[in-house]
Amino acid sequence: MTPESTPGTRDGQRSPSAVRTAEYPWIHADGRVTFAVPAPSARTVELQPGGHESGLAAGSTLPFTRGEDGLWILTVPPVRPGFYYYWLLVDGVPTNDPNTETFFGYGRPTSGLEVPDPGSDFHDLLDVPHGEVRTRWFHAATTGRWRRCLVYTPPGYDDDPGRRYPVLYLQHGAGEDERGWTMQGRANFILDNLLDRGAAEPMIVVMNNGYALEPGEVPATSGSIPELSERLLNAFGDLLVRDVVPMVDATYRTIPDRSSRALAGLSMGGRQALSVGLANPDTFASVVAFSAALFDPLDPETAFGGALADADAFNARTRLLWLSAGTGEQRFDEALTSMESVLAKQGIRHHTYRSQGTAHEWQTWRRSLHNVAPLLFRG
Amino acid sequence: MTPESTPGTRDGQRSPSAVRTAEYPWIHADGRVTFAVPAPSARTVELQPGGHESGLAAGSTLPFTRGEDGLWILTVPPVRPGFYYYWLLVDGVPTNDPNTETFFGYGRPTSGLEVPDPGSDFHDLLDVPHGEVRTRWFHAATTGRWRRCLVYTPPGYDDDPGRRYPVLYLQHGAGEDERGWTMQGRANFILDNLLDRGAAEPMIVVMNNGYALEPGEVPATSGSIPELSERLLNAFGDLLVRDVVPMVDATYRTIPDRSSRALAGLSMGGRQALSVGLANPDTFASVVAFSAALFDPLDPETAFGGALADADAFNARTRLLWLSAGTGEQRFDEALTSMESVLAKQGIRHHTYRSQGTAHEWQTWRRSLHNVAPLLFRG
Repeated sequence: MTPESTPGTRDGQRSPSAVRTAEYPWIHADGRVTFAVPAPSARTVELQPGGHESGLAAGSTLPFTRGEDGLWILTVPPVRPGFYYYWLLVDGVPTNDPNTETFFGYGRPTSGLEVPDPGSDFHDLLDVPHGEVRTRWFHAATTGRWRRCLVYTPPGYDDDPGRRYPVLYLQHGAGEDERGWTMQGRANFILDNLLDRGAAEPMIVVMNNGYALEPGEVPATSGSIPELSERLLNAFGDLLVRDVVPMVDATYRTIPDRSSRALAGLSMGGRQALSVGLANPDTFASVVAFSAALFDPLDPETAFGGALADADAFNARTRLLWLSAGTGEQRFDEALTSMESVLAKQGIRHHTYRSQGTAHEWQTWRRSLHNVAPLLFRG
Repeated sequence: MTPESTPGTRDGQRSPSAVRTAEYPWIHADGRVTFAVPAPSARTVELQPGGHESGLAAGSTLPFTRGEDGLWILTVPPVRPGFYYYWLLVDGVPTNDPNTETFFGYGRPTSGLEVPDPGSDFHDLLDVPHGEVRTRWFHAATTGRWRRCLVYTPPGYDDDPGRRYPVLYLQHGAGEDERGWTMQGRANFILDNLLDRGAAEPMIVVMNNGYALEPGEVPATSGSIPELSERLLNAFGDLLVRDVVPMVDATYRTIPDRSSRALAGLSMGGRQALSVGLANPDTFASVVAFSAALFDPLDPETAFGGALADADAFNARTRLLWLSAGTGEQRFDEALTSMESVLAKQGIRHHTYRSQGTAHEWQTWRRSLHNVAPLLFRG
């Protein structure tokens, strides 16, 4: 262990994603991050970042150095604030870092690095009133199975039994699950902080698993992340509109009408939000897509069940269409530009946001939620 | 891969603890379990069970066999139903099994194997009404920090705003956290199932992290599980009595009196329940300890702040003192026998339960909860 990588000898902090008893990952004051893992019997230990444009390391694996005590150490150059999936390769075999919490991504529990932003605390756990994140089990007729969803109720929800709330349905990306938006995305803290300063309408947020199977269908066990097929889109749409929305309206104190429902999602979930949301205007008046995984050119006459064909009708019935991407995720940024062009030409009212300097990563989506939430169910 | 270990070629099922896209661990109809992990570049892959008396493998590491395709396979002899922590050793380095969910135990996210019991479904997700498990953040004056706890509210909690409920405070064991009782213990499903047949009093269950630090104190970063010191016991007791109980009574529709509060825990949490619960009779009228980590002989005059010294007074004020252990966990079984003897001699009214054939494992504690819950807040 080199002196400059020793925790406590320099300013810095443990990563907030570290487990309670771990001293690594250590984030130095200058933004460098030191990882360490005891592995006396390993021949090689490497860090592999999730994704191609990670702020943690640009797509390449980074080798640890073995110390005499069998502790392998890696210090990476300054990492920009945000959340990054990663895993270790121990003698080439993917494993989790024993020092961090796991986060469900890439279809499995995955290590995560949280790097705080000294200049911004919009997604931090602050000294403000906090809502609850409720785990609810419900039976879905569409899939013939019990499912689990997470429901954020805003601060004060239990205090005023007469008050009703609008609902944001919020979807994760491919390989993630219903836990992503709270564990990785900190959606609950983002909302808590906005609500504390009156910057958003108090709302319920419902987070579902974006994968849905037909009754009796067995999940694919390829070990890889399932593709977003038309079939998956349709199954999820049926689940959401036929099972989830009625269950939520029957269970929570919602305002049960289209103008008080929004559907949002990121990446795969962004495509789901556009496809399901725009094709079901009787259910959702607002549709929000972060880094939507939608790369084919839009035909404005046929896309989303023809929802865009009549711009006047669309603009009259749509409360908000809001799209975003990070400037560091080229493919998704270009897809957004392409979509903006089609929508503008068609005369479809919409809003866009670009997260500066972030890629296909949670910081893009946290910022997107933070930017769109104040616009929902208002004005 | 040998034919008899191939999923689909024999009766059996994936472990319920497997992630969605994994086909292993595979539980054969005869109870054998096959694990598999792709690791073409590894020299050795072994399975290490958590604990000394695991039903998965009695304390020893078990070697996988490498297939020609680089898939390492291990089939273990029939495993008794329950939940077992384990991890893999890849070239000697502890790693998680990529095929399973992780469960917080041993101070870190750990792989888990769930083996269903064909003859018993008391802790399964059944077709009954389900309560919610709410994640709540609260500021604790005792520690000077925000903390997270989980709160089970029974089915119907939101439907009758006038109804109030008794509260069970339920603690995990060493190295685990506030998620243990729902993720590993399935406490919510156990309660849902009991409540569905009217076999228990509807109750709120509050699950806290059993580790508490003084304000400004930095957690030990030894990488090992913190010891249960007197200091930790006192800090947790202060946290529970001064912060948690008032917060819960102010936040949920509780019956805010001692006779409607029980404190229970397992192992380390069992010792905490006895120490904190019996020393705070004004707060808790019922105390429940599963496999309590309490091995020194009890002095009935001084133990638990002298709570046992006056048997008549104890029996008059105590609604329930309930103790359990598994017959397969010798040290804890003997500790229970010793405690029974002291309590009987002292004339302290108490109840005991022994889980047949289970050791220091979650099946012991699931059964214990299932057995004690019907006795709480009734009669």
